[in-house]
Amino acid sequence: MISLECDYNVGAHPAILQRLSETNLETRPGYGCDDLCESAAEKIRLACQCPEGDVYFLTGGTQTNSTVIASMLQAYEGVVAADTGHIASHEAGAVEYTGHKVLTIPHKNGKIPPEVLNAYLKGFFEDSNHEHMVFPGMVYISHPTEYGTLYTRSELERISSICKEYQIPLFLDGARLGYGLMSHGTDVTLPDIARLCDVFYIGGTKVGALFGEAVVFTRQNTPPHFVTQIKQHGALLAKGFLLGLQFDTLFTDDLYFKISKHAIDMADYLKEILLEKGCQLYLDSPTNQQFILMEDSMLSCLDGQVAYRFWEKPDPDHTVIRLVTSWATPKEDLDHLKEILPDPS
Amino acid sequence: MISLECDYNVGAHPAILQRLSETNLETRPGYGCDDLCESAAEKIRLACQCPEGDVYFLTGGTQTNSTVIASMLQAYEGVVAADTGHIASHEAGAVEYTGHKVLTIPHKNGKIPPEVLNAYLKGFFEDSNHEHMVFPGMVYISHPTEYGTLYTRSELERISSICKEYQIPLFLDGARLGYGLMSHGTDVTLPDIARLCDVFYIGGTKVGALFGEAVVFTRQNTPPHFVTQIKQHGALLAKGFLLGLQFDTLFTDDLYFKISKHAIDMADYLKEILLEKGCQLYLDSPTNQQFILMEDSMLSCLDGQVAYRFWEKPDPDHTVIRLVTSWATPKEDLDHLKEILPDPS
Amino acid sequence: MISLECDYNVGAHPAILQRLSETNLETRPGYGCDDLCESAAEKIRLACQCPEGDVYFLTGGTQTNSTVIASMLQAYEGVVAADTGHIASHEAGAVEYTGHKVLTIPHKNGKIPPEVLNAYLKGFFEDSNHEHMVFPGMVYISHPTEYGTLYTRSELERISSICKEYQIPLFLDGARLGYGLMSHGTDVTLPDIARLCDVFYIGGTKVGALFGEAVVFTRQNTPPHFVTQIKQHGALLAKGFLLGLQFDTLFTDDLYFKISKHAIDMADYLKEILLEKGCQLYLDSPTNQQFILMEDSMLSCLDGQVAYRFWEKPDPDHTVIRLVTSWATPKEDLDHLKEILPDPS
Amino acid sequence: MISLECDYNVGAHPAILQRLSETNLETRPGYGCDDLCESAAEKIRLACQCPEGDVYFLTGGTQTNSTVIASMLQAYEGVVAADTGHIASHEAGAVEYTGHKVLTIPHKNGKIPPEVLNAYLKGFFEDSNHEHMVFPGMVYISHPTEYGTLYTRSELERISSICKEYQIPLFLDGARLGYGLMSHGTDVTLPDIARLCDVFYIGGTKVGALFGEAVVFTRQNTPPHFVTQIKQHGALLAKGFLLGLQFDTLFTDDLYFKISKHAIDMADYLKEILLEKGCQLYLDSPTNQQFILMEDSMLSCLDGQVAYRFWEKPDPDHTVIRLVTSWATPKEDLDHLKEILPDPS
Repeated sequence: MISLECDYNVGAHPAILQRLSETNLETRPGYGCDDLCESAAEKIRLACQCPEGDVYFLTGGTQTNSTVIASMLQAYEGVVAADTGHIASHEAGAVEYTGHKVLTIPHKNGKIPPEVLNAYLKGFFEDSNHEHMVFPGMVYISHPTEYGTLYTRSELERISSICKEYQIPLFLDGARLGYGLMSHGTDVTLPDIARLCDVFYIGGTKVGALFGEAVVFTRQNTPPHFVTQIKQHGALLAKGFLLGLQFDTLFTDDLYFKISKHAIDMADYLKEILLEKGCQLYLDSPTNQQFILMEDSMLSCLDGQVAYRFWEKPDPDHTVIRLVTSWATPKEDLDHLKEILPDPS
Repeated sequence: MISLECDYNVGAHPAILQRLSETNLETRPGYGCDDLCESAAEKIRLACQCPEGDVYFLTGGTQTNSTVIASMLQAYEGVVAADTGHIASHEAGAVEYTGHKVLTIPHKNGKIPPEVLNAYLKGFFEDSNHEHMVFPGMVYISHPTEYGTLYTRSELERISSICKEYQIPLFLDGARLGYGLMSHGTDVTLPDIARLCDVFYIGGTKVGALFGEAVVFTRQNTPPHFVTQIKQHGALLAKGFLLGLQFDTLFTDDLYFKISKHAIDMADYLKEILLEKGCQLYLDSPTNQQFILMEDSMLSCLDGQVAYRFWEKPDPDHTVIRLVTSWATPKEDLDHLKEILPDPS
Repeated sequence: MISLECDYNVGAHPAILQRLSETNLETRPGYGCDDLCESAAEKIRLACQCPEGDVYFLTGGTQTNSTVIASMLQAYEGVVAADTGHIASHEAGAVEYTGHKVLTIPHKNGKIPPEVLNAYLKGFFEDSNHEHMVFPGMVYISHPTEYGTLYTRSELERISSICKEYQIPLFLDGARLGYGLMSHGTDVTLPDIARLCDVFYIGGTKVGALFGEAVVFTRQNTPPHFVTQIKQHGALLAKGFLLGLQFDTLFTDDLYFKISKHAIDMADYLKEILLEKGCQLYLDSPTNQQFILMEDSMLSCLDGQVAYRFWEKPDPDHTVIRLVTSWATPKEDLDHLKEILPDPS
Repeated sequence: MISLECDYNVGAHPAILQRLSETNLETRPGYGCDDLCESAAEKIRLACQCPEGDVYFLTGGTQTNSTVIASMLQAYEGVVAADTGHIASHEAGAVEYTGHKVLTIPHKNGKIPPEVLNAYLKGFFEDSNHEHMVFPGMVYISHPTEYGTLYTRSELERISSICKEYQIPLFLDGARLGYGLMSHGTDVTLPDIARLCDVFYIGGTKVGALFGEAVVFTRQNTPPHFVTQIKQHGALLAKGFLLGLQFDTLFTDDLYFKISKHAIDMADYLKEILLEKGCQLYLDSPTNQQFILMEDSMLSCLDGQVAYRFWEKPDPDHTVIRLVTSWATPKEDLDHLKEILPDPS
């Protein structure tokens, strides 16, 4: 069975397992107060060119989103997101569970258009009735987005500038950040993100780690007693050094970037195969998530051989599916997929 | 440096690392819907003699406590706990963050005396004013307790029976459950716990795993859409199979119990050493946490050589410290401690 | 100054003040456990033809919405509302503050089209990913809507039937219910609402009372310990008998309906005047809220003479304003408005 | 039936009803943006000798407590209260419902002893483990307390000084403030309270109003967008002018103080009667709540004639009851009580 269903379907990069074994019985203090976390944080600050960044390690994406968002919002504030944003749609209301509204605005290919954001914020503050409304207190974007798309540097700069104008922090969800940074043609670098965002996280779960996300507060703007708030959210890992170890490994010798590039190469190869077979790209994603419009007759060839995710059914004869590569996708799997799919008639 | 500070200071039992390596690149579905989780659940059901139990795996203790408690309480209910209970004191208000009060009653050596519980519940429902009060909706006990003490089977039976009488579920926090079950002289078995509690968790983080706690609902009483609620709490691990793998390993060939016994043996040896050196037990703990009353002159011998936790200062010349053994404590460390400590004069 | 800004700009119907005076120094038990609340509840049950209804009195609309919604939802559920719904837009996130998402669907003239609701619910439960999403646990409609529009009986029946199919309770926000029931041409009666909704409230604040809303649970479906939940929301009035007194008065001799009719008569007269003067109805509201498209030159005639609410600016020369009548609007005010406005050229 | 059960058992002082009638059909803006609220606020600032105070009007005590507390705490903070504090015991968990823990410390006659508060705060910040605990973020006291007792000025000064040292705001719940200020022998004045507290409220519900509490922020420390937060709590009264009208009346010509004094006079008379009849004071309350130890044989004389509240049963032959006077208690009722009770044998 070829698994192209998601990018969290295997363990960790072997270098991480190796290091887990090497350090397994060494004793360390709990809750992230250890040498590995400190070393990983320092390497991340360097990679971000953000010497004043504060780095914290959490376990998973939804947990990170709700902890960061809740700890940065005032009670009367909500977080602005695209209506396709992960926090708006697929996190089971984790943000609302903390008492805050997700204020959705219409997406374009999964992204928030800067002009739409600007119009929304302008409209809010001009509305004489806004004291009875939820105040926008943060802007949330994902990069890559839930549709695999990427902001350009110029778009990020405009969004960042709008946020500054309204004094609202910008939070970037980088669950798949490596795949965004290694995408061909992107002009957005990790230092750009650190420069333009107030807080963001570097995803580990989907990019080489067993689990773990690295949150970076870029402007000495860490919420007060953030460790206590992490604990309050049930998000403080007892053996925090496991997170430090993983990120320290990923940010040694550019491992994070190298393994991300592999996923992009595999996604390119996947696209090539699918186009050759006569499929259509449902939307043009430059990252590791591909949304494919496939004839149902062809789709049936995947049964029992390829794990994928159903996306939607645009007409009776076609289906859109999501296929995902990762740092771990074997090229052989794609070669095999090529054999499985029939040639176009 | 000898580390007796806590029981979450090293990695995992080598069998777990071994298995992580073996399965690392095998693909599995996410979010706990995999063969390893199912196998682990089945082994746990067997060990509990609870064929109808529902088993879920979460990452850490505070997370497990707040997720289980919040999902089982009605809005107008709180959870009854000893005032020394972990949820009442050292979880940064994680339960209150979900909107529920922790209703504390006085402990005795870290335990809830059954008669105190009964009097509390009787008093609550007899109070004509109780519609303006938080209803007791669950009873929380830890076993071993935060003081290392254990309930007897008879005490558990009485508490369970009181809970049944008032139709309030009983939840047992087993963060260190293995150490309780392997304590000399305890008459409480894992099947007893499954029989007497409505829900409990088997701690992995402190007993051989990298991380992870196994929640068991014993009476087909899993809250509706519990997976959604786990997600909402930010507690649903993407690579859930890592939890399954760990618990499957721990519940194969009684590994969980064998490694727990080692911690108890080491605690016994530790006590023997300390008593021989003239220290006093601050309270008599039959498990892996020892609370020691030490002269300050002796305490200074530990400086830079032994990591321990300060507990309290009962008088100007003495200090109470906590020393903790675990599945991983080397006997050599205790031999060395014996050398470090001066003989009594 | 003529006040057409809102329908909560004066005190109460004189019959209420009269009764307040008569009973002022009579002693009564607190928290709604009194003869006046019981009498009012009984009269409401009769008016609703709902002998099994449970009636509770709260103070204001937002409070009632968040208390009823939060007490009827499970933690993993949200409430479905039109994107124009009051709870979605102008209650400062009161529902989210209780931990629940407002799941918005597109409105049509302020109403939820039954087919849109059906498609949303069908889509949700068919989505294989819905365990990671907020479950729809209630449908919220307002009647009249925030746009002054009304559901037909047939629409309500379809919505009610969809809710039953999906086993989701239907909640009707009747902040201006009297004005809806007395609208010319409506075929919806109070017994219809009691028959078709699982819970609704009859607004007093905007319809003759100083303050107060009467919640009716129609199917013996009052949430457990609802009084405790009201208290928890800070919504339990100490002198609850004041609410009973007001609703008892309003539901004696059809006072609630008679005074509502006056507001409708005044709204009709208002429309007649405005159309005669050449204004346009921005949307055709059959109730006491009128949305008027006015030339800015005419609008300036209102300055300092008429209080209204700005709604929006569709083009540089026109403005949409909201004008509202109530049970207390003097006909003389409208006569005077007629004089103020210039005749069409 | 003589009602000594509570101090919220009748309507309002006649001057309030009179003014309601006079202004009933005058139109005013909603939500507290009116001349009556402004006038009342100004009179309260004068009475408090606090020209920079911000004054807000809410409807009831529990609502006021939870709104003020939640809006002043950070997420990781809780509120310190005596274990007998109303927020800790009889508000149905309203504070916890907003996500915050009530941190209880032992009371003495309903009061927080300053040295107990100091020891608690010192202990908290010295505990090396306090990052895993709920931070004390506010101190809550009630004056009069739930036991009818009063702080001395010196005690308030010490508590205020401790709060300042730890930079924690002091909040005084004045649900029965008038009765405290008019108590014989108290040396605490309203300006003292404004000087020593960061925020407090002046109770109206129990002291002459139909409903309403006036919150005073004394140090230009109103939480940001407090009106939005009031709305979010469902606590923003549409016809806010009703609250302004009531407090404007109560703070005209010292009405609030004069009617409070009547309750104290009546309480003194009540005590005199009861002592004469051989009852004992269960605790010595200088305000309008009296806690009386009565022989059960005497208690039976009250049946059907006097409404009181059961407090506790200290032994088989005696009962403690609470008797409460108010601004509205008729002296005739007490004369009649005197006749009902048998003379001591």
